[in-house]
Amino acid sequence: MLSEFDLIARYFTRPSRRFSPVTLGIGDDCALLSPPHGSQLAISSDMLVEGRHFFPGADPFQLGHKCLAVNLSDLAAMGAAPVAFTLALALPEANAEWLEPFSKGLLALADRHDCELMGGDTTKGPLNICITIFGQVPPDQSLRRDAARPGDDIWISGTLGDARLALAGYRNELPLDKDMLNAAAPRMHAPTPRVGLGVALRGIARAAIDISDGLVGDLGHILHRSGVGASLDADLLPAGAMLSAQSAELRRRFTLAGGDDYELCFTAPANRRDDVLAAGSLSSTPVTRVGSIEAAPGLRLRDADGKPLDLQLTSFDHFASP
Amino acid sequence: MLSEFDLIARYFTRPSRRFSPVTLGIGDDCALLSPPHGSQLAISSDMLVEGRHFFPGADPFQLGHKCLAVNLSDLAAMGAAPVAFTLALALPEANAEWLEPFSKGLLALADRHDCELMGGDTTKGPLNICITIFGQVPPDQSLRRDAARPGDDIWISGTLGDARLALAGYRNELPLDKDMLNAAAPRMHAPTPRVGLGVALRGIARAAIDISDGLVGDLGHILHRSGVGASLDADLLPAGAMLSAQSAELRRRFTLAGGDDYELCFTAPANRRDDVLAAGSLSSTPVTRVGSIEAAPGLRLRDADGKPLDLQLTSFDHFASP
Repeated sequence: MLSEFDLIARYFTRPSRRFSPVTLGIGDDCALLSPPHGSQLAISSDMLVEGRHFFPGADPFQLGHKCLAVNLSDLAAMGAAPVAFTLALALPEANAEWLEPFSKGLLALADRHDCELMGGDTTKGPLNICITIFGQVPPDQSLRRDAARPGDDIWISGTLGDARLALAGYRNELPLDKDMLNAAAPRMHAPTPRVGLGVALRGIARAAIDISDGLVGDLGHILHRSGVGASLDADLLPAGAMLSAQSAELRRRFTLAGGDDYELCFTAPANRRDDVLAAGSLSSTPVTRVGSIEAAPGLRLRDADGKPLDLQLTSFDHFASP
Repeated sequence: MLSEFDLIARYFTRPSRRFSPVTLGIGDDCALLSPPHGSQLAISSDMLVEGRHFFPGADPFQLGHKCLAVNLSDLAAMGAAPVAFTLALALPEANAEWLEPFSKGLLALADRHDCELMGGDTTKGPLNICITIFGQVPPDQSLRRDAARPGDDIWISGTLGDARLALAGYRNELPLDKDMLNAAAPRMHAPTPRVGLGVALRGIARAAIDISDGLVGDLGHILHRSGVGASLDADLLPAGAMLSAQSAELRRRFTLAGGDDYELCFTAPANRRDDVLAAGSLSSTPVTRVGSIEAAPGLRLRDADGKPLDLQLTSFDHFASP
C-alpha cells in the first residue's frame, strides 16, 4: 500500500527545470511562482468527477490527458500561454495500476505544452480530479467573453460534434456501429486543447470561449456578456468526420448543442479575415467562419439557403441534467 | 432547482473591488490576476472530502470557514499575505439551504483576510471542496521547510491538541463530557489560520510549516528537508484549554500527534528570540519555544526533567488510515 507521500514522490515529482518561473515546486506548504515581469496570469480551475465527466473505470492514461486538456482549453480561450498547474486528487485507494498511467497521460500533455506540475493535494475519497492552471497573457491582449462587437465574424476551430456522437453511441441513444464509435471516441476521451491557436489570435480576435457545453450555450455566454446578438449559419458548422456521415438533423443538433468539443469559438473584425486564417495556419488548426455578431440581441440560426431555422436546443447544465 | 449559473451568481459573485490585483473575476474562461510588481506568488491547493476531512452533515457555515482556513494556513506557513482564491465545488445537489450558509462562512473569512474569490467550478458529485489559494511574499522572505539550521529554536503558535480531543469525543474514543466537547469542538470546526503571524515572521523565522497532521509528523518534514534533527520538550508543548484538563499521557499524545491544529511550527535563530516574541505580540498570537534544531538526524523527545521520552507516535496519512 502506497502512502500519500510515496505516491506523490513516485508518480508526480520530477526534477525541477532550469529557467522555470516555478521557484519552488512540490513539497512545501505552498509552491512559489515568479510571474514573468509585466504579464498577467490567467487562472482556471476545473473539477472532474467520476460518473459525471467520465465513465467509471475510464482509461487512466486518457483521463490524465483529458483533465489537463480541459484546463489548457480554458487558457487557449483567453489567449494565454501555459505556465504551470496544481493537481488535487481524491482517490478511493492509492493504486499503482491506476496512478502510473494516469500520471503518464497527464504529464505527457503537460510536457507538450511546457506546463509544470507545481503542487497539489492527494486524499482518499470518491474519484475527483481538480486542476488549477496558470497561464500568462500580456495585459490588454486577453480574449474575453465581453469583447465581441457587432460586425465581428464568428469563427470555430476544428470540428464539432464527434465527442457528442461518441457519447450517444456509448449511451445507445443511436445505433452507431463499432468502427464509427471507435473513430469518434478519441474526440471524447482525448480532446486537443487549441493552445497554439489561442496565442496566435492575440491582437486579432476580440472575444473567445472554449466550447465545452455546446456551441449555442457557449456562444450565448459571449453574446450575454458582450451585450450583442448573432446569426449562425447552422449548415456551415464544421462537423466531425464521423458526424458528417450522419443525417442532416443529427449534424445540426450535435454541432450546435453537443458538448465536450473543446474547440474555440471566437469573434474577430471582418477586416481581419486574412489574419485569422494566418493564425490558423501558423498553429496548424483549421478555422471556419460560421456567422456574425449583430447588434440585435438573441441568436438567429440560418440554414444553407439563408432561411431561419427554429430548433429547440439546450446547453448542458451540471445540476439540471440527470 | 438552481442551475449551475444561478448558484454561482447568487452565492459566489460579488461586485469587483477597486485596487484589486484581480483584473477579471468570475465569469470568463479564466480569471486574470496582475501580480504586484516584484512579488512572488505562493500557491496552495487543498481538497476536502466529506466523511474524510469533515463529518457527513457538517454545519455548512463552519465548513465554508474551514475550507478556506486550511488554505490560508498554508499561506501563513510560507509567510505569504493572502491575495485571492478559486473554489471548485462538487455537490450532490444545488441546495440553497446548504449553499447560503456555506458561502457566508467562506466569504466572511475571505473578507477578514482581504482574499478575493476570483473563479472556480461547480459540478454535481459527492461533496468535495477544492480551494486553490494565491498569496504574495517578497522573494527571499518565504518561510520554507528546508531552511532550518542547527542551533535554531523551535516555536509553536497558539495551542495544540483540542481539535484532536474533540475528534476523540465524537468518536467515543474517550469519555468526554458534553461541555468539554462543546468547548473543544470549535478548534476542530473553525480553526484560526495564523496569517498575521506568518507575515510578521518574515525576515525573522527560518523554516515554517503548518501543523495539520500532527506536530511530530509535520516537524519531521522540516527536519527531513533541512537535513537536520531536533530535540523537543514534550512537556513544554502548549496544550489547548480543554486538553490541559486531561491526563499527562493524553496531553503528550495529542499535542505531539494530534491533527487539525493549524498552528505554525517554525524555527528561528536563538538570537532572534525577542523578535519572535514581538512578532507574536504584533499579530496577537501566543508563541511558545518548545525545542531546538540539532545537527544530529532524528527527533528526540524530552520530559519536564530533561529525560528522554520514548513514545510511539504516528502521523496522519490519508491512504494508510482507515
